[in-house]
Order: sequence, then C-alpha cells, then structure tokens
Amino acid sequence: MSSSAPSRSPWPRPEDRDRERGLKREAVLRTAVSLFNEKGVHATSLEDVAKALNVTKPTIYHYFANKDEILFECVRRGVEGIRDIGVDVEQQGGNGLERLKAYMRNYAVVMTNDFGICVTRTADHELSPESRARFREMKRETDTLIRRVVEQGMRDGSIAPGDPRLVTFTLAGALNWIARWYDPRGPMTPEEIADGCVATLVHGLATRDKEK
Amino acid sequence: MSSSAPSRSPWPRPEDRDRERGLKREAVLRTAVSLFNEKGVHATSLEDVAKALNVTKPTIYHYFANKDEILFECVRRGVEGIRDIGVDVEQQGGNGLERLKAYMRNYAVVMTNDFGICVTRTADHELSPESRARFREMKRETDTLIRRVVEQGMRDGSIAPGDPRLVTFTLAGALNWIARWYDPRGPMTPEEIADGCVATLVHGLATRDKEK
Repeated sequence: MSSSAPSRSPWPRPEDRDRERGLKREAVLRTAVSLFNEKGVHATSLEDVAKALNVTKPTIYHYFANKDEILFECVRRGVEGIRDIGVDVEQQGGNGLERLKAYMRNYAVVMTNDFGICVTRTADHELSPESRARFREMKRETDTLIRRVVEQGMRDGSIAPGDPRLVTFTLAGALNWIARWYDPRGPMTPEEIADGCVATLVHGLATRDKEK
Repeated sequence: MSSSAPSRSPWPRPEDRDRERGLKREAVLRTAVSLFNEKGVHATSLEDVAKALNVTKPTIYHYFANKDEILFECVRRGVEGIRDIGVDVEQQGGNGLERLKAYMRNYAVVMTNDFGICVTRTADHELSPESRARFREMKRETDTLIRRVVEQGMRDGSIAPGDPRLVTFTLAGALNWIARWYDPRGPMTPEEIADGCVATLVHGLATRDKEK
C-alpha cells in the first residue's frame, strides 16, 4: 500500500498507443473534411492535408490508404449521423408527425457540421466506383428510414396524404440544402436554423386560417 | 414578277451563316452540359465534348475560349431561367402566396432540365474566380427575387410569418434538390413533381385539421 510507485516507462503503454493512433486518425479526417468542403475534393491533395497537420504525406498513409478512403470515411460519418437519428426515432413513441419533427430537427443540425456538409457537397462521381456504390446504398437506407416515418404519419393521420417518396425528397432537400448555405459566422445558430426550417416544413408556407 | 430567280450562290448568306453558327454553339453547350451533369465538370474534357460532336477540339475553340467559359454559360442559362420566372411573377397580380406558388412551380420544372441541374450540381470552386463571382451574384439576385415575394406574402397575410431569408432557403433547397434526384426515366413527369413538391411546401407536412 505504501510501496513506492515503479518508475514509469518512457514508452507508451499499448492502450495509450491505440488511443493516440485514434486521435491522430481523427485529426487527419477533420482536417481533410474541412479542406474538401472549402476547396473541393478534386483541388485538395493529401499533400495539403499533411501540410495543414505539420506532417509529411507518408504519415497520412499510416492512417488511410488513399484520398478516396478518406473521403468515403468523411461521407460515411455524415450519413451515419443521419441514420443514427432515424434509428433513435424508430424506437421513440409518438405519432408519425412528432417523430418526423424530431428526425428533421436533428437532421438539420447534422447539416451544419463538417461531415454532414461533406455528404451534401460530394457528388457521386467524386468517389471511386466501389465507394460510390456503398455511399449510394447508405443514402438509400436513410431515405428509407425517413420515408417509413412519413408513411406512418400518413397512416395515423398526423401527416397530410401525398406520395411518401416525393414528400421525403422535398423535406430532405430543404434540410440538405442547409449544408450549402450555412455560414458559421452567420446570425443564426444551427438550432435556430433547424427550428425555423422544420416549422416551415411542418406548417407550410400558407397562413393556416387564410387558406382556401 | 415572273422573272426567273437568280441562281443561288453556293456560299451561305451572312444571315444563314450567323444562324448556323448559333446552332453549332448551342450544340456545344447542350453536349457539354449533359457531360458535366453525368461525369462531373472535372472529369469532362473539351476533348470529350468534341468527340461527342464528331469534331476536333480546335473546332470547340471557335465557339468558346475554354471550359470555364462553357461551364459559366451553362450555369448562366440555368440561373437566368429561374430569374426570368421571378421577373414574370413580379409583373403578375395576386397575393404573395399565389405569386410564390407560380414561381415555385416553374422553378421546380427548370430543375429537371440540364441547365437547371447544372446550376445545382456545380460547386462554386469549379468555376474560375471571375466566373464564380458572377455566378454568386446571379444566384443572390434570384434569391432576392424569391425573398421579395415571400416578404410580400408575409405582409399581405397570405404567407405565414417567419424569417423571410430562412423561409426562402428552405423552399429553394427543396426545389434545388429536385436536380439531384430527378430521373427522366422515373415514374413522374416534371410537372407532377413540381405540383407535388409545391403542395407539400405550401400546405405543410402536418394535416391541417389535426394540428395542435
């Protein structure tokens, strides 16, 4: 109990090494995604990413095989952020409209973070054929999750009748577009944007009592 | 009156030459825009455009100085299509909501044509700095036209109160997104898509009588 502590080894313990590797990989991703969003994928080289992190390009290859793998990981994070919301909402109670509101609000906030922005800005043809197929599949999954909530709301009468696929594309477009115009230096917080955007989508443009 | 017609010159008249030049320039644009939309701007070379038209690259330079000029002309057409609708709507009677509906419906249809698709798919950084500045300026103008109609509707009580800028981005996002998912081989015509999308935006997702 009172024995003196053993002198610490100057070499990191395996768990610290893993942790540090994870942190460094994360730093590569965060730097890459912000460069992709700012300059575009094509104009961003791994050299640029390395330079921004004060390392050389070979260091980047310790963490990722190539630019396509980095880009895919960025969009994967963004899409998973949206999918996780969908999964949460599926487990949540409430009618279709209540669940859809929760979904849309969180989705809108994801669209103001770098990985969400990357999902919207990345064109399919910027990914390798293999990554593109996986990216499309993931996007289809999230669309399906939203459409299911829309369909539930149409069935329970909380959401107005319509073509669930078209309704899903309409609301997803409004939300995805946030990633194109959001400016962190702008006057509104992500939450204010989310609330305003969801209110317009839920209540509609027309004044409710004046409607014919 | 009955004098025989002079034998026709095998050289084209100046007006025919101008007309033919216009048609050829148009063909270059239409071929380029469809390749840009399909493969992306970066992956499309003037060589590809020339090949698709059965000509050589120097022929393309008769009509355009470079790829940037072609891309700018493509997005200019798309944005002008949207702006023209805005100008028509400004001259049209009706309350804000009625005008906004007409605007949105025509806007949605533009988003299913190649030049409209190109506007939505082209990232600012794909244009040269000079073209980019002009493109941004044009997009700002169309946003202003829409926002004015939204503001008019909020003043006359036909459009529900809200932040006109955020409302404009929300509806523009839903409409712009059509360019990302529209498939000419899909089951709906551009007009059906436009009507469905506008109905959701105008009336909202919530069933009107069930709303709290």
